[in-house]
Order: sequence, then structure tokens, then C-alpha cells
Amino acid sequence: MPAAAHEGDRLEVPADEAQHLVRVLRLGPGAAVRVFDGRGHEWDATLREATKQRAAVELGAARAAAPETRIRYTLVVAALKGDGTDEVVRDAVMLGVTAIRPFVSARTEVGVAALTRAHRRERWERIAVASAKQCGRAVVPVIHEVVDVTAALVADDAAVRLLCAEPAVSAAATTLASVAAPTDVSLAIGPEGGWTSDEVAAATAAGWRVLRLGGRVLRADAAPLVALAACQAVWMDD
Amino acid sequence: MPAAAHEGDRLEVPADEAQHLVRVLRLGPGAAVRVFDGRGHEWDATLREATKQRAAVELGAARAAAPETRIRYTLVVAALKGDGTDEVVRDAVMLGVTAIRPFVSARTEVGVAALTRAHRRERWERIAVASAKQCGRAVVPVIHEVVDVTAALVADDAAVRLLCAEPAVSAAATTLASVAAPTDVSLAIGPEGGWTSDEVAAATAAGWRVLRLGGRVLRADAAPLVALAACQAVWMDD
Repeated sequence: MPAAAHEGDRLEVPADEAQHLVRVLRLGPGAAVRVFDGRGHEWDATLREATKQRAAVELGAARAAAPETRIRYTLVVAALKGDGTDEVVRDAVMLGVTAIRPFVSARTEVGVAALTRAHRRERWERIAVASAKQCGRAVVPVIHEVVDVTAALVADDAAVRLLCAEPAVSAAATTLASVAAPTDVSLAIGPEGGWTSDEVAAATAAGWRVLRLGGRVLRADAAPLVALAACQAVWMDD
Repeated sequence: MPAAAHEGDRLEVPADEAQHLVRVLRLGPGAAVRVFDGRGHEWDATLREATKQRAAVELGAARAAAPETRIRYTLVVAALKGDGTDEVVRDAVMLGVTAIRPFVSARTEVGVAALTRAHRRERWERIAVASAKQCGRAVVPVIHEVVDVTAALVADDAAVRLLCAEPAVSAAATTLASVAAPTDVSLAIGPEGGWTSDEVAAATAAGWRVLRLGGRVLRADAAPLVALAACQAVWMDD
């Protein structure tokens, strides 16, 4: 999509979306569709050309998308086994996350090479697009490459960096109420087996604060949603 | 389980748990197990008798269970289609809910009779037990009978009653920060298709306040988790 698009513009549809429109939804010329550029803009549009090879739309009126959060949230999250990360991406997009940085760590059950071979990042990007559509966001969060936990934690330069830990680790941890609303925050969530003590020590040395997310052990696939919901509620950030 | 149990007591195991121990886990006399009574107590125990018909344990030392929340949370939640409510029950137990009251409303895709025939409540009770074990709680929340939305909302007598609504409904709604931490709270969450305006009006007339849960549309199966996490974060309730 071009940097700036306007009502009346005629645009080619990307090949995979064109296939979806024509083969799956079986839409033809004249069909009403919605178009968004993933950067905050959305339009009503009309399908003008639709063959199995290509499709083109004519933009109509711009639409009001769901508002973005005031704070920028980066979710630094362990890759889960199986398809577990799919739900994490879907839910995090729904809660307004700005970026997702997946990592592998000592207790992660999959490796970077296997995730890359399986084209997981591309899959998560498609899920992010679908989730953005579903929840009314016109911004699609960035999905970063999967990296090692050390790279993920050290590279992070958010104003506030919070490592979410289970109750046993976080007895003497920060509570959200003691953290003033930042302009940007990174939230790190460990894998099913949790963080190792070395990982917590390395994160702390790199400037991360340990955040306690309640007194019970949370499932790894639910912890990102709980962390994001907690931040937005305490910081009153829609 | 008797009202008060102590180290050294010998107890019969309920039939379904006995089957699980003997047929699925294939445990025999002498195996170490944990026992909890669903009312806040947990023990190490030793399996003393294990046949296909019955099992008995001898209680060992009492264990420290995960702490319960200070506030009592009742989740008044629309039954979702398919198995959708299973995850809601599992996640709500993990976040420390005290009771779950499922209901059907105008836009619910299933009816009370179908849910009763399918023994859904018994299924949700088993899921609540399993989730309590997994997250370290020794208290199993009450799962109430499925009722009509009117009965669910009118019968509720919690000190604070919050009806969680999508952004379009809740533009002029309460924010959590303006609600002082109560001793008990009921949180109502609608079905996939949302509340009807009649339902919102009836709830408001019955004393419910409309709560806005962020600026984007949440999936019905994720909204309970978001609402509970938000309350606990704002009210600093572990």
C-alpha cells in the first residue's frame, strides 16, 4: 500500500488477500469490502477487478478505526510449545500491543532453528492481521524475529521493563501501582516451565524489574493477557 | 470429605478420583499423592488402598496452598457456543474467582435446556477442580446452575456489580479507578454477540454499573480474564 492513499484511489490487492477474496469468499467486481493499511488507516472500498490471479479495489470513505493505546506495549514473550503462541499473538493484538518479540530460553521446549524452519513468524504475522481486523484495530503490531532470551532482554530499551514472574520468584517484587505510567513499556513473560534463576538475575542486572502477577500460578498462555490487562487498568490506558 | 480432617486420618477417595488414580495414573498402595478438600485445605497423603472399585488415602502433613484473594469475585457469565465456556471456567479459577454464575441471554447461541441435557454444569465443575489443582488453589469455586440473564442479574446482591460492555455501549461508563475496592464484586460478561440494549437497561435499573474494558472489542472468551485481571491490579488484590 502506498504511503498515502485517498478516496477514489485504485489499488492492487496483495496476492494472498486476492486469493482469499476470490477463491474463499467468492466475491466478484462490485462487492463491498474494507481495506486497511496496518498503519492506522481504514477505508470502505469496492472490489473492481477479481480474477484468480489478481484483484483491485477502489477506495471509498475513510473509516474510524478503534483507538490505539496511549502507551506503547512491547510483549517480550517465550515461544510456547505447539500452537500455544498463536493464541498469545491473537490476544495481545486485541489488547492493543505495539510489538511482539518472541524468544527462546533455557526452559523453552522449541529452538530458534525449528521455529524459523516452520515459518512461525510469518504465521504469527497472519494471525496479527486477522486479530487486528476482528477487534477493529487498523494498526497491525510488528512481530519481531525469534531470538535468544539474552538478546531479547538486553536489546530492549523501553522506558519501563517488567519481567513477569510466578509467585515463588516474585515474593519481594514490584507491584504495578508503584510504577508511574510510562510512555513505553516492555513486558517479559517466560515459557511453560518459567524463568531460570540465572535468567531472572541477568534480566535484573540489565535493568528489568520483577513484577508479581497475583498470588497463583498463571498458565503461560494466559499470562500475557493478564499482564497487559493489569497495566492498562492501573495506568488507565484504553 | 469430613468437616475437619487431620494428619493420620484415613479417607475414602470419591469414585471418579479413585478410577483416575488406579486406571489412568496406575498408582498402587504406597504412592504419594496430594489431597485437597476444595475449601482451602491441602495435604500430602499416601495411597493405602487402590482397587478398581475404591481407593483410600492416609493424610500426611498439611500443605500451604496458594493464597485466596481478599475480595470475593463472582463471574456472571454468558454461556458461550461449543466448548467456549470451558476455557472461561479454567481461566477464572486461575485468577481466583469465588463463584461462577452462567446465564443465557437474548444473543446466547445455546439454551438452558440444552446445557442442562448436556450436563455442562457437571463438566464445568470438573474443569474447576482441575484448574484449582493446576494453579495451586485449595479452594474450588462454586459453579451455579445456568439461569436466564434476568434471574442472574436481579438475584445478584454483591456490594459492587459491574456489567462489562464493549466500547460502543460503554462510552460514558464507569472506569475501575473510580470504584473503591469492595469486599465482594460481581462482574457480568455478555455472549459473543454482546448485550442487547434492553439487557443493559434492565441491569442498570437493577443497580449494575456499566464498566468499559478498553477501547477495542474483546473476544467473549477473553473478556472475563481481562476483567478479573483489571480488578485485581487496580484494587491491589492478590
